[in-house]
Amino acid sequence: MHALNRLIDLALEEDIGTGDITTETLIPADAEGDAALIAKEDLVLAGIPVAQAVFRRLDPTITFPEQLADGTSVTPGTCVLKVHGRLQSLLTGERTALNFLQRLSGIATHVRRYLEAMPATAIRLVDTRKTTPGWRALEKYAVRTGGAANHRMSLSDGILIKDNHVAICGGIRAALEKARQTAPHTLKLEIEVATPAEAQEAAEAGADIIMLDNMAPETIREAVHRIDGRALVEVSGGVNRNNIAALAASGVDIVSVGALTHSAVAVDISMTILNAS
Amino acid sequence: MHALNRLIDLALEEDIGTGDITTETLIPADAEGDAALIAKEDLVLAGIPVAQAVFRRLDPTITFPEQLADGTSVTPGTCVLKVHGRLQSLLTGERTALNFLQRLSGIATHVRRYLEAMPATAIRLVDTRKTTPGWRALEKYAVRTGGAANHRMSLSDGILIKDNHVAICGGIRAALEKARQTAPHTLKLEIEVATPAEAQEAAEAGADIIMLDNMAPETIREAVHRIDGRALVEVSGGVNRNNIAALAASGVDIVSVGALTHSAVAVDISMTILNAS
Amino acid sequence: MHALNRLIDLALEEDIGTGDITTETLIPADAEGDAALIAKEDLVLAGIPVAQAVFRRLDPTITFPEQLADGTSVTPGTCVLKVHGRLQSLLTGERTALNFLQRLSGIATHVRRYLEAMPATAIRLVDTRKTTPGWRALEKYAVRTGGAANHRMSLSDGILIKDNHVAICGGIRAALEKARQTAPHTLKLEIEVATPAEAQEAAEAGADIIMLDNMAPETIREAVHRIDGRALVEVSGGVNRNNIAALAASGVDIVSVGALTHSAVAVDISMTILNAS
Amino acid sequence: MHALNRLIDLALEEDIGTGDITTETLIPADAEGDAALIAKEDLVLAGIPVAQAVFRRLDPTITFPEQLADGTSVTPGTCVLKVHGRLQSLLTGERTALNFLQRLSGIATHVRRYLEAMPATAIRLVDTRKTTPGWRALEKYAVRTGGAANHRMSLSDGILIKDNHVAICGGIRAALEKARQTAPHTLKLEIEVATPAEAQEAAEAGADIIMLDNMAPETIREAVHRIDGRALVEVSGGVNRNNIAALAASGVDIVSVGALTHSAVAVDISMTILNAS
Amino acid sequence: MHALNRLIDLALEEDIGTGDITTETLIPADAEGDAALIAKEDLVLAGIPVAQAVFRRLDPTITFPEQLADGTSVTPGTCVLKVHGRLQSLLTGERTALNFLQRLSGIATHVRRYLEAMPATAIRLVDTRKTTPGWRALEKYAVRTGGAANHRMSLSDGILIKDNHVAICGGIRAALEKARQTAPHTLKLEIEVATPAEAQEAAEAGADIIMLDNMAPETIREAVHRIDGRALVEVSGGVNRNNIAALAASGVDIVSVGALTHSAVAVDISMTILNAS
Amino acid sequence: MHALNRLIDLALEEDIGTGDITTETLIPADAEGDAALIAKEDLVLAGIPVAQAVFRRLDPTITFPEQLADGTSVTPGTCVLKVHGRLQSLLTGERTALNFLQRLSGIATHVRRYLEAMPATAIRLVDTRKTTPGWRALEKYAVRTGGAANHRMSLSDGILIKDNHVAICGGIRAALEKARQTAPHTLKLEIEVATPAEAQEAAEAGADIIMLDNMAPETIREAVHRIDGRALVEVSGGVNRNNIAALAASGVDIVSVGALTHSAVAVDISMTILNAS
Repeated sequence: MHALNRLIDLALEEDIGTGDITTETLIPADAEGDAALIAKEDLVLAGIPVAQAVFRRLDPTITFPEQLADGTSVTPGTCVLKVHGRLQSLLTGERTALNFLQRLSGIATHVRRYLEAMPATAIRLVDTRKTTPGWRALEKYAVRTGGAANHRMSLSDGILIKDNHVAICGGIRAALEKARQTAPHTLKLEIEVATPAEAQEAAEAGADIIMLDNMAPETIREAVHRIDGRALVEVSGGVNRNNIAALAASGVDIVSVGALTHSAVAVDISMTILNAS
Repeated sequence: MHALNRLIDLALEEDIGTGDITTETLIPADAEGDAALIAKEDLVLAGIPVAQAVFRRLDPTITFPEQLADGTSVTPGTCVLKVHGRLQSLLTGERTALNFLQRLSGIATHVRRYLEAMPATAIRLVDTRKTTPGWRALEKYAVRTGGAANHRMSLSDGILIKDNHVAICGGIRAALEKARQTAPHTLKLEIEVATPAEAQEAAEAGADIIMLDNMAPETIREAVHRIDGRALVEVSGGVNRNNIAALAASGVDIVSVGALTHSAVAVDISMTILNAS
Repeated sequence: MHALNRLIDLALEEDIGTGDITTETLIPADAEGDAALIAKEDLVLAGIPVAQAVFRRLDPTITFPEQLADGTSVTPGTCVLKVHGRLQSLLTGERTALNFLQRLSGIATHVRRYLEAMPATAIRLVDTRKTTPGWRALEKYAVRTGGAANHRMSLSDGILIKDNHVAICGGIRAALEKARQTAPHTLKLEIEVATPAEAQEAAEAGADIIMLDNMAPETIREAVHRIDGRALVEVSGGVNRNNIAALAASGVDIVSVGALTHSAVAVDISMTILNAS
Repeated sequence: MHALNRLIDLALEEDIGTGDITTETLIPADAEGDAALIAKEDLVLAGIPVAQAVFRRLDPTITFPEQLADGTSVTPGTCVLKVHGRLQSLLTGERTALNFLQRLSGIATHVRRYLEAMPATAIRLVDTRKTTPGWRALEKYAVRTGGAANHRMSLSDGILIKDNHVAICGGIRAALEKARQTAPHTLKLEIEVATPAEAQEAAEAGADIIMLDNMAPETIREAVHRIDGRALVEVSGGVNRNNIAALAASGVDIVSVGALTHSAVAVDISMTILNAS
Repeated sequence: MHALNRLIDLALEEDIGTGDITTETLIPADAEGDAALIAKEDLVLAGIPVAQAVFRRLDPTITFPEQLADGTSVTPGTCVLKVHGRLQSLLTGERTALNFLQRLSGIATHVRRYLEAMPATAIRLVDTRKTTPGWRALEKYAVRTGGAANHRMSLSDGILIKDNHVAICGGIRAALEKARQTAPHTLKLEIEVATPAEAQEAAEAGADIIMLDNMAPETIREAVHRIDGRALVEVSGGVNRNNIAALAASGVDIVSVGALTHSAVAVDISMTILNAS
Repeated sequence: MHALNRLIDLALEEDIGTGDITTETLIPADAEGDAALIAKEDLVLAGIPVAQAVFRRLDPTITFPEQLADGTSVTPGTCVLKVHGRLQSLLTGERTALNFLQRLSGIATHVRRYLEAMPATAIRLVDTRKTTPGWRALEKYAVRTGGAANHRMSLSDGILIKDNHVAICGGIRAALEKARQTAPHTLKLEIEVATPAEAQEAAEAGADIIMLDNMAPETIREAVHRIDGRALVEVSGGVNRNNIAALAASGVDIVSVGALTHSAVAVDISMTILNAS
């Protein structure tokens, strides 16, 4: 919450600067009215509470007569949020609120498209740490809103031994043993491997999760076979909406996709003043 | 600078949490080495100083033996930044530094593609305020790095009278007169219009800049004709890489494109440890 | 708003330190009462909302049964604000609230005196950036409250090419051309000149505003003549209440006066406890 | 130190906004040079370290080839600080550095004038808490630099029982006894009185310091007589440069003057670029 | 208040990180209920308002149907605070609220034990600056709640000349004279001495308070004799619950004990959910 | 790092207030010297880098000619850190640096005593979240320095299902299934149980770690028997230095002890000025 407020403050400060001159100049300070935020394309909504927090941070007297829930699929023309209050506040907060809502809904929509491309199996689609700096919690929330799950939030709530760690430690077995001795007992040990042979070595050395990095489909099947149920299997790299169904059939447990966040774009939402008094 | 540091702090805090457990567990605290940040696709580089600031904020002893300048076009495999220091710091800072660099270079690359689609005229391509909250200054910098120019940075350094303002003020002429009386004398008066008739009214009422909102090409030509050189003409809305050349030929002075920032995606850059000791 | 809160926090922290020992020692925590803030001299009121924000930041339960509007001219003995709440809070907040109110009203009063010395022409009296560090927005607000207008708020919302810039750029024309190419299209170009010849050169090179720096009255008239309506004319330097009427008659559009803020002193306002229970 | 940095940050942020457009547009980023800060009137210097901190906070590579010490009396034309570094940094920091230096030197100069009006006795001239909010430590420093001493810094490092406290406590004796029981044993007890009889009562009740509020000279002499050396005597209210010598002869120990800070104005100091490369 | 909020923010952020996964996963967001904080041992309560502030900072809708006042002595099984609100908020705030309450009550309880070991004389038991960094105001509050008084809050609200200061100044008399000349007139002069002879020298040189550092009982009596009522006498060092009664009989005015804060441990308090809906 | 700096800032601000009056009054600003921090009892050192950070934050020119490593066992009289710099800075920073060092070393020493009371088995001694608010990372570091391990750092990096969660979810099996579905796949599932039957139910429902809460030794053995190697076994509650050896023999894997942090007291360390110039 605190980090979100810091981001909202940064956003309002950078957008408002020393004041919204146009609005202060032209709109009477005591004029009130309603505004509607309208979807301009098909989208999965995410970020309504954030947009509300932006308006309230700017002006605590603003209220919200109507709103749709995050996660709702909406069609063009749908009003997703109605805002009531001082017209100056509505106009000054408009861009920042929309910028949050458009990006978060963009991610949720992007995630939903991935899920629609996947067969209905037990496989879990998760994000990565490839998020917009400052936006980690928000974007991971949008991913969940879109229907996928989260990988670790930060470097402190998961062990993930990558190729560079393995190389410096002198091998998969050495890295896993060192990690088991000193890591918190509450975390699973995950390790990234590049070949089926490495996957087998990791399974034998007691890895809890084995990440298959950038492997071709048949190689993935071979690795799954060698791991033989001794660890959860995660596939990462080179996953896209076209091949995700095939991957899901390979017997893997988890597919992680950086593009869920790093390649989502904003969806189109705009604000209209409904009436003024 | 201060706002950038606040964003970098937010980013490092959210990514590191209470510590990079994997790295602290596996990598000796006194091991040093070099890492290379490598472009994995064609891109226009933007954000090298930001990536450096991330590493330095994490560990002030990190140095940068090699680096390319922002604005450089690079091909896959190019090393864009070499980093030297404690291995723990390199590994812990990797993701945050890359997340900044990938998004900013993504924007610069996106902007460059737009410019390549435009004829070599005097028309000015500018961004909008549709930027990622918290990232205004950075994204506007990436836009300049890609070769375009900036519209106003915030609501306080430009007057832009939009449809909602006009409606509440009771017309274009009334809005412009009110603005001229009270706005700072150092700012030009810009107004958004929806029809050629409104454009003519704005020109007659002394607008300095007239923004033609979402008009078809022939309507734009008509509006330009009616404005007749009495104001700068800006076109906004519905501009994309396919029609931008035609727009540029319509006699307008400025084209503003929200997609420069809101629809750019990250480009692919990765980090490799070169050697460790 | 946010910056104001930071300043109020700084002010309360520096005045209260670890606690108002006298009041905590002597006044029962549950005693309530009313206090009146009384003008002790003729003044133009500015800062009532700031004084209220100080009290509320200290104790959100404080209320204000009566208040005068900023901009009101008051005579000695007038109650400008009535405050109700816990006596401890009233006494602890007294000095900080008064320090804000006395300085801001001091500026508004000072500005009003300048305006009274000016004939009723279309000339615009504006402030400068010579404000108390940390107080920019507040002091510019007090200037407006007193009846004058603001010059730019900060270095980012106006172009003002000064002698040092001209010297380094190699002349007035070169500086103006360079600025026009790269500056945002939403800002006017203002330049400072020292002689009528420079004023003419600036007008010919397309300056939007020309600032005549520290010129004698007859030189100003000569400069206005040479500019010949091609730019707004601003006079700065050496302006005071005695010569401002003459300047206003010279055909200039704007007079900027640093003394509006840097030479204003506090007016006298004090607080009295009306009753306690 | 920390509070000063917060104030400097506020000041730089409010003056620079999103960037010094004029300077960034016109001055090459790698141009370096020297600047001189020059006194334009007779003044007592205060704030050189603050001006340096401003420049360094903006650009840590700036150096100071020459500087005068705070407390020095200078004549018009004297260079008080020489600054070397990137021209962009010198020009961007100029106004904020000067605004600090001009106000602090204004206070030191104002204080020096008061001291020159006083005879050379053991009487101590002190300030009050009537300082610019956010500037407490700085302005009290300027007072010391001018040659006077400080009263308490904040409500937490001194007991000062005022008329409102006395009224609510039910009398001078009751207030002093209550204070002695619960106040920290390290602080003296100071009380404000309005008549010689009250002064005598306070002395008998064990006050360590007695403040005579707004008394006429003969009343002060009567009060001093009745206190009879049992407490330090402080005079406050209605003190100015004309009557301060007479007061100093009345046998009082301390004179406190709010005008030292609340009625000081900025002195004139300007910056000139000496050379550029 | 502000500093307390900063500490509470630090505490909530460090305990919650990116979210209370267990609670968010298992407890419905709209479930409400009541919780009781129960003392598990005999203790003196301190910190109820702090625990409330923690819960409210986390969730402003939380209410407190029942509470005991700080300073109350309670027995095992007593409910000291009843909390009502969203179950998620109760569970997420539990540990932080308890950690504050257990430590502060631990100090108040510890202080009460000291006072019970002292005879009912006029001697004043005070704390020191040996407090947990970040907790100064809170721990000093707990000391007062337990029934003792505070020594100075910080280095700025008391003069205490220690052995190192004396050594560098060249003796007790020199140090006291220097201090009297420049220190604020509102503070008493306290000095630490190691022998009765030094105590006598300090009394003669006009010290207001003399601290006897780590002296044996008979040496203390000798020092008190030599000071002969000319200053307040404070004893520090080597004081514990066994010898404090003897010290109190030696004629000293104040006993300061670092262990009041640095050797207090948490008392046992736990939280139980009473009902959920 | 950032959070530590915030705590150090809080600590320095609260201890220094508006300035160390005694030191500023008595010690020449340019005097330099050395100081030694000396252990006054047997202790395990923890916090030397924190003490150094305090001094450096106060005065970046301070250096450390000698220092012992954290984790070292030292005897009374040992110099643990030598500090060189301006005498004013050494004296002003002394108390804050010592307060950090004494508490952290107190915890490390306390932990070492627990470990010495345990037999040399594979059992892991861990801390809890019962830490001083604001000090989580520091106290967990001191626990590691003393030789024990850490339980989870915060609510976001471990799942721990407690009795309240179980009750609201409708039983152990329901809670575990719900957690497995939505919790991040990188975290183990830990659950608290009160009886051997519950322990068996948790093991059958797939818990990764089972915490036996406050059980008698024979009950613990029964629970371990029923869990039968299907999960890690953690014992919590009622553990102290007397019974920890017996517990360690019961076949449990982990013992968590809140007293490691909540009942540690400061050890005695003092600072002496060695020489001044």
